[in-house]
Amino acid sequence: MNSNMEKPYVVGIDIGGTNTVFGIVDARGTIVASSSIKTGAYAQVEEYVDEVCKNLLPLIVANGGVDKVKGIGIGAPNGNFYSGTIEFAPNLPWKGVIPLAAMFEERLGIPTALTNDANAAAIGEMTYGAARGMKDFIMITLGTGVGSGIVINGQLVYGHDGFAGELGHVIVRRDGRMCGCGRKGCLETYCSATGVTRSAREFLTSSTEPSLLRAIPAESITSKDVYDAAVKGDKLALDIFEFTGQVLGEALADFIAFSSPEAIVLFGGLAKSGEYIFKPIQKAIDENILTIYKGKTKLLMSELKDADAAVLGASALGWEIK
Amino acid sequence: MNSNMEKPYVVGIDIGGTNTVFGIVDARGTIVASSSIKTGAYAQVEEYVDEVCKNLLPLIVANGGVDKVKGIGIGAPNGNFYSGTIEFAPNLPWKGVIPLAAMFEERLGIPTALTNDANAAAIGEMTYGAARGMKDFIMITLGTGVGSGIVINGQLVYGHDGFAGELGHVIVRRDGRMCGCGRKGCLETYCSATGVTRSAREFLTSSTEPSLLRAIPAESITSKDVYDAAVKGDKLALDIFEFTGQVLGEALADFIAFSSPEAIVLFGGLAKSGEYIFKPIQKAIDENILTIYKGKTKLLMSELKDADAAVLGASALGWEIK
Repeated sequence: MNSNMEKPYVVGIDIGGTNTVFGIVDARGTIVASSSIKTGAYAQVEEYVDEVCKNLLPLIVANGGVDKVKGIGIGAPNGNFYSGTIEFAPNLPWKGVIPLAAMFEERLGIPTALTNDANAAAIGEMTYGAARGMKDFIMITLGTGVGSGIVINGQLVYGHDGFAGELGHVIVRRDGRMCGCGRKGCLETYCSATGVTRSAREFLTSSTEPSLLRAIPAESITSKDVYDAAVKGDKLALDIFEFTGQVLGEALADFIAFSSPEAIVLFGGLAKSGEYIFKPIQKAIDENILTIYKGKTKLLMSELKDADAAVLGASALGWEIK
Repeated sequence: MNSNMEKPYVVGIDIGGTNTVFGIVDARGTIVASSSIKTGAYAQVEEYVDEVCKNLLPLIVANGGVDKVKGIGIGAPNGNFYSGTIEFAPNLPWKGVIPLAAMFEERLGIPTALTNDANAAAIGEMTYGAARGMKDFIMITLGTGVGSGIVINGQLVYGHDGFAGELGHVIVRRDGRMCGCGRKGCLETYCSATGVTRSAREFLTSSTEPSLLRAIPAESITSKDVYDAAVKGDKLALDIFEFTGQVLGEALADFIAFSSPEAIVLFGGLAKSGEYIFKPIQKAIDENILTIYKGKTKLLMSELKDADAAVLGASALGWEIK
């Protein structure tokens, strides 16, 4: 606690394919200052780091200077915690292995750690959110894809190479839907926002049931459309959620057999569909779980506010730096 | 190291449904003395503990007395590390929750820890075997059933309730083979010794291919028979190993996405089928693994001698007691 008194802030940098958002965060999870730049506008990673620093440094100075910052945490696609590098990230402009943590550390003189976005979300949830005080939980992020961060014995699981926890690519249906990773039947082909829209198209084709969704051109249906239809009691939309929740619940029952977590925390747009998705997930967990685990693992919704979650998650890593 | 000098031994007690084997083990993994009793002969657990102590104490005394023993480790079915209890073990004579670690600790005055047999095997492998020096690996025990022990960041994964790591009950085929746990399609219905014999019966029924196995009454075929036939080049037996290895390899590819281990260590009768089983496992891992993990996780055979493995594994837990 002493070091937090002396250094009351951390910096969180969330690197997305479109935007990079960064902010200064205190120990209670309040973002005291933040800003953002366009990630894609910088073909050279040096220019990019310069631009982040140019925008970030004034915020740091306004809050007491670099001496008040305990650490910088970065959440980035394909981020490797051990090496502090981004490795072959398909949606970022810089190719190969980028030593991003070292670059920021050098520019700003503040210890910097880096991990992937789902791991950052898990640390954020443990530090400021629904998993406060928990030593064993699994974070599942339901976005365009499905990500995960696994915490065991109070530590994030990085594995021997820094890349553990790709539960979105556990295969849930052998020879199932084609996945962007080149394999078939991955969890994220069913339970991401994209997965829900694929299900919508399948369900609309394979049945003749009337549905509000039939008014929307098949190719432009979003998971939000499915949610809106479900809220209006649309049977087909409810069936889509039922199916999505079942596939996810079956997978979660298997994940529980791995690490027997106290809770599974769901984050992201789909998680906000509330009971429409939580009920079928819980039902599928209950029906598929080994007796020894029955009724023990809580299914929770993230408590981090959407707009802040990415920066908070990344920033939480800043507290962990030894 | 100092405390090992003062207390150079640990005691391992392996509790099986038939026999209980116990021994005194030194820091290099040499069993300096051992003995056994019949587990099933004692309807009351108090009698059982008395009998183990009556046989164990002379061995301890002959090796310098209780002051030379750092700890006792017990491997037992349904063992819970946190509480030191055996809970509702179907194959043991004592029902309900049995505080076995406390009972031994009280009788002998030596700190005692307890875990399930597969976890004990993992700690044994990390202390004396193929996983020496590794901080991240998964132990898979292929016996009558399939068990597992998961090590992450150098620590055994117990989960929030002490029961983590039941990978034998991850569902690998939805609506697949009926499992003893009451569910369908668990890994152990395919990849245990029992699973291999089930496969043998299925393969013999579904094809008319000549096979050495047809000379054996279907109900009495063992996994050893399948191995013996495979060694003689029997096509059907080789197909059975191919199938078993494929199912296991597919499952291992998913386990790697969880904890990205440095190695997976296979233990038990089936693992000793060598290339017949390792080749198809490795092939299925390679074909099913996410690109990011490709070629990184070693597939190893246990280095613990069969006869000693259970006692060594349990004993290794004795070193871990704080």
